[in-house]
Amino acid sequence: MARVSQEHLAARRRQILDGAALCFARNGFHATSMQEVLKEVDLSAGAVYRYFRGKDELIHATVMEVLDDVRTAFETVGRQTPLPPPYELVGTVMGEIHRERPALRVDGASCFPRLVVQVWSETLRNDDLAAVIQAGFDKVRAVWVEIVKGYQEAGTMRTDADPDAVARTMVAAAQGFLIQQALFGEVPIATLQIGLRGLMSMGEVS
Amino acid sequence: MARVSQEHLAARRRQILDGAALCFARNGFHATSMQEVLKEVDLSAGAVYRYFRGKDELIHATVMEVLDDVRTAFETVGRQTPLPPPYELVGTVMGEIHRERPALRVDGASCFPRLVVQVWSETLRNDDLAAVIQAGFDKVRAVWVEIVKGYQEAGTMRTDADPDAVARTMVAAAQGFLIQQALFGEVPIATLQIGLRGLMSMGEVS
Repeated sequence: MARVSQEHLAARRRQILDGAALCFARNGFHATSMQEVLKEVDLSAGAVYRYFRGKDELIHATVMEVLDDVRTAFETVGRQTPLPPPYELVGTVMGEIHRERPALRVDGASCFPRLVVQVWSETLRNDDLAAVIQAGFDKVRAVWVEIVKGYQEAGTMRTDADPDAVARTMVAAAQGFLIQQALFGEVPIATLQIGLRGLMSMGEVS
Repeated sequence: MARVSQEHLAARRRQILDGAALCFARNGFHATSMQEVLKEVDLSAGAVYRYFRGKDELIHATVMEVLDDVRTAFETVGRQTPLPPPYELVGTVMGEIHRERPALRVDGASCFPRLVVQVWSETLRNDDLAAVIQAGFDKVRAVWVEIVKGYQEAGTMRTDADPDAVARTMVAAAQGFLIQQALFGEVPIATLQIGLRGLMSMGEVS
């Protein structure tokens, strides 16, 4: 048997995951057949099964990778000094998310938002994956709660607003925007930033 | 053959859709078998197939109903005088959404947010349903653009913010919050309202 480099193995694994990502983004996890994945990656069943024992393993690897990418994107913003305003931070997160696999496109748009929606749907029916996404969300919330506290300490946000509620809301805006990008095509990230800025401009409303 | 009242037919149809909604919310559309639906609604195959010719028809009816419910919830807020602030309007929408089938619960929480996530995932792989959700979103956006223009005319929001961007962002916050309720259990609607109010309190940030 030929000696195969680690690099080659990793590249082949990446090729399979990328092809599967396209199939799953187009058609969901459960309506996609292994035959469709094989056709997309243009490899034999034997070559693919060397890396993934079947569709379940491929789904699991895809979900884990997407959850990790999304969590990492939300965590990159950290607590900076001085703290950029929310529309800038949320824009940064969306930019990070869209840096994931930019070459993989469905109907002319990045496949990643579609893949995220499929991943959310899959975590609802799998307790192990649900635990992973819950743990990731808790970490993200912890980072964003610190950001909100930073605003409050800097005097730019009312101090009686529960930091966890504001953190959840900023994350929700990004999640909802991902939904819109998945369902309704590529909306520029600047749109979300303009929208958040518009909302913020309302200031205190009695 | 016994004469069956319209009322009875409608009630039976409702019973099937409700049982299917529970199954789909728990396990997604494609991993749910017709056997599971039959068990959940406690009817014979013959009784169920009288209303729906198969799983595809049941999925279609469920998706159409959920899309209609969500669109209606977003449209209820309309353009009122005086215009309530965004956190009140978004809270109203979430309240409307949670009035849908409150008795149907999964893991102690309303099944409706979970069902919405499954519906979003399904619309991604079905062009007909994608057209329906796109048309519904366009209607919702039109309503919310008018609301944003109302804020701008009342002088409570900066007038250089594109109304469509702000409308999309308010809808995104609600969509993202639905995701969180689906994935992470019943978060009170007040949390989203507190969060939006906190963001708004930041006012103009240079």
